[in-house]
Amino acid sequence: MLQISQRGQLMPASPIRKLVPYAEAAKQRGIKVYHLNIGQPDIETPKLVLDAVRNSNFKVLEYSHSAGNESYRKKLVGYYKTVGIDVTYDQIIITTGGSEAILFGFMACLDPGDEVIIPEPFYANYNGFVVAAGVTVVPVTSNIESGFALPAIAEFEKKITAKTKAIVICNPNNPTGYLYTEAEMLALKQLIIKHDLYLFSDEAYREFCYEGKQISAMHLTGVDDNVVLMDTISKRYSACGGRIGALVTKNKSLLDAVMKFAQARLSPPSFAQIAGEAAIDLPSNYFDTTKAEYKSRRDLIVKRLNSMDKVFCPNPGGAFYAMAKLPIDDADVFCQWLLEDFNYNDQTVMLAPATGFYGTEGLGKQEVRLAYVLNLDDINKAMDCLEKALQVYPGKK
Amino acid sequence: MLQISQRGQLMPASPIRKLVPYAEAAKQRGIKVYHLNIGQPDIETPKLVLDAVRNSNFKVLEYSHSAGNESYRKKLVGYYKTVGIDVTYDQIIITTGGSEAILFGFMACLDPGDEVIIPEPFYANYNGFVVAAGVTVVPVTSNIESGFALPAIAEFEKKITAKTKAIVICNPNNPTGYLYTEAEMLALKQLIIKHDLYLFSDEAYREFCYEGKQISAMHLTGVDDNVVLMDTISKRYSACGGRIGALVTKNKSLLDAVMKFAQARLSPPSFAQIAGEAAIDLPSNYFDTTKAEYKSRRDLIVKRLNSMDKVFCPNPGGAFYAMAKLPIDDADVFCQWLLEDFNYNDQTVMLAPATGFYGTEGLGKQEVRLAYVLNLDDINKAMDCLEKALQVYPGKK
Repeated sequence: MLQISQRGQLMPASPIRKLVPYAEAAKQRGIKVYHLNIGQPDIETPKLVLDAVRNSNFKVLEYSHSAGNESYRKKLVGYYKTVGIDVTYDQIIITTGGSEAILFGFMACLDPGDEVIIPEPFYANYNGFVVAAGVTVVPVTSNIESGFALPAIAEFEKKITAKTKAIVICNPNNPTGYLYTEAEMLALKQLIIKHDLYLFSDEAYREFCYEGKQISAMHLTGVDDNVVLMDTISKRYSACGGRIGALVTKNKSLLDAVMKFAQARLSPPSFAQIAGEAAIDLPSNYFDTTKAEYKSRRDLIVKRLNSMDKVFCPNPGGAFYAMAKLPIDDADVFCQWLLEDFNYNDQTVMLAPATGFYGTEGLGKQEVRLAYVLNLDDINKAMDCLEKALQVYPGKK
Repeated sequence: MLQISQRGQLMPASPIRKLVPYAEAAKQRGIKVYHLNIGQPDIETPKLVLDAVRNSNFKVLEYSHSAGNESYRKKLVGYYKTVGIDVTYDQIIITTGGSEAILFGFMACLDPGDEVIIPEPFYANYNGFVVAAGVTVVPVTSNIESGFALPAIAEFEKKITAKTKAIVICNPNNPTGYLYTEAEMLALKQLIIKHDLYLFSDEAYREFCYEGKQISAMHLTGVDDNVVLMDTISKRYSACGGRIGALVTKNKSLLDAVMKFAQARLSPPSFAQIAGEAAIDLPSNYFDTTKAEYKSRRDLIVKRLNSMDKVFCPNPGGAFYAMAKLPIDDADVFCQWLLEDFNYNDQTVMLAPATGFYGTEGLGKQEVRLAYVLNLDDINKAMDCLEKALQVYPGKK
C-alpha cells in the first residue's frame, strides 16, 4: 500500500493553526474574534517598501542569484553594521523567509540522529524543520517564574551527549518575549566553545527590545565558525508575506554547504527582494515609531493580565509576545472553549495554548501565548473578554 | 571540530552553475557569451501578470494561507480544467516554486534509504532534493539515439526493489525535451499499479509541446492516490523569479502530510501569488504566440546542429531544451574550453555539459544541453560559434 513517509507522519501539525476551524465557526455565529494567537503584525508595511515593488519596471521576472541579489546583500552589510554586526556580503545568503534559513542551517549542519538543545518553550515550527532534517530536539526548560530567563548552563551540560551538535536560541524570544542578557550570551559562548557546538540564533525580532539592547550571537567574539544567524524581514518591516530572510555566518565551509541547498531551489523570491532592499533605506527613526507602538501595547497587555485574579504575566523584554499563566486546568481546552462556548457581548479572544511551544510533554498546560499585534483599543477589549472568561470558565483552578 | 553534515557534504553543487566563473572571466576579456546553458527564458513576463502586482493596493504584506490564497487555488481549478485536469481547489497546495513542490513530495512520501527511479538524463536539481530527503536515485538510462524515449518497462522492472517507492518523470522533459507518448504514460501507469509506487510528474513545460499534446500524469485513470503533480508558473509565464509552484494530488493522506510541511514554512510568497492568479486571466492565445516563438527556435537550433559535421540532435517534442551529441572527448572540458580558450569574432557560447544530468557515472560525456532561450538571431550566432569551435577544439573525436 502507498504510505506516507515516517517523516511525514512525525511532522507535527501547526499547534497554532489547529484552532482555526473553531475561530471560523465562531465568526459564522456572528462572534467578533480578537486574534492574539498569531504573530501577524497589524502594523502597515512601510509604503516605501511596497512602492519599491509597485514602481519596479523590469520586463522579465527572472531568477535571482541563488544567494539573493548582490545589490541587496551589499546593502544588508550596511544594515547589519547599524546593529553592530560586521559581515561581508558573501557571508549573507538570502533565503525564502527565516523559515528557509532555519531549514538550510539544520540541513547543512545536522544529520539524522543528531541532537539540538533548545530552551523551551520555543517557536513551534522548529519542530517541523527538526523532523524534516531527521534530528531530535532536546529541550531545556525555562520557566515563567523567572520570566523565561536562560536556564542555568548546568542544565544544558546535563543534556549534552556525543550526538549534540547545536544549540538553538531565539532572541528576543518567540514565544516568551524574553531578551537574553549579555551575561547569558557570554555563558552560551563558553558552552559552545567547550563542546564545539553550533549556535543557531533566530533574531527575527531584533529591533523590538523594550528593556535594553539585544546582544546578537554575531556580537560574540572568537566563535565565528560556531554562530549561524537566522534572520527575516517578516516582523521587522511587517512584511511576513514577502518570504525573505537570510542565513548569515562567517563559517566558510558552512556557507559553501548552504549554497548547494540554495542552488537546488534556484533562488529566493524576486519581488520581495526588491522590498527587502528598499527597506534598508527607511529613515533611521522607523523603528522608533513601531517600537513605541509595540511597547505601549506590551505595557497595556501585561498590566491588564497581571490585574486579573490569579493571572501572572512576566514583563517581556522584546518581540511582541507575552506568556501568561492562567488559573485553568488545560490551556488547549480553555482556548478551544473561548472560541466554541464563550462570548462576552458577542466578542471573544483567540490565544495560543503554550503546550505547543514545549518539547516536554505535559508542560505549559496553564500557560498561553498572547501576540500583541492589535491596537490598544482592541487589546483592551480582548482583555475584557479574557477577564470575563476566566470568571466563568468551568475548568478554572 | 565543527562539521558540515554528511548530507551537506553529499549535496551536489549545481553542475550548470559551476562554469559561471569562466563565463564571467570571458566577459571581462570582452567576449560576448551566448547563454544557452540555463532555462531562464528571455520571453517577457506578460504585462498583465506584472501589472497585477504593481497595481495591488494592500497595506500589509501578510502571510497567506499555508496552502496559498484560496482565491488563487480556486482559479487554478479553472486553469487545470483547460488542460484536461479535473481537480478541486483543496487538492492544490501552492508552493515556493516547483522546487518546493518536489521537496515536499519527496519529504512526505519518502524516507531515508528509500529509492526513486528516474529516467536519465534528468533535471540535475532532483539530486539536491533527493539528498535533502536522504533518498537514493536509481537511474534508468534513456539514450539519444531514440531521442530519449522512455526506457523499456523491463528496464524499470530490473531496478525495482523493496525500497523503491516512486518513479519521477519530467514531461515534456528537461533536459531532453522529450514528450512522453500516451503509450508510454499508460505503460508507466501499469507499472505504478503493479508495484504500488508513487508517480511524481514534473510538468513545468506542459504548454510547450510542438509535436502533439502532453499526456499529463493527472490524465491517467485509476491511479489517483499514486500521482503527484509538481507544477510551476516559472516557465509557463516567464515568471521564474516569482517562486510560485504547486503540488497537486488527489491523495488525501498525502495532502494532509504535505500541509504539515507547508505550515512549518508558514506560506508561499504573497506578491507572486497575485501574479500567478492574474496569469490565469491571460487570453487563451497567449501560449500560441510563445509556443510559436519557441518552436521556430527549436526548428532553427536542431537544423543548425544536425548540419554540423558529426553532430546529432534528436528533434525534441517539447520544453525549450535540445540535447546534442558532439564529436568531442569530454563535454565538461569542452564547455569550459569554449569559455576559457575559444572565441569567434570575440563571441562564444555557453552550454550545459550533459554529464550533470546523468546519474550513472561516465554517461553523457559527448552530450550537451542547449536551452533555446535566445532569439533566432542570437541562436544563429551561437551556432556559428559552436560550429567553428568544433572545427578547432583540440579534443575533437
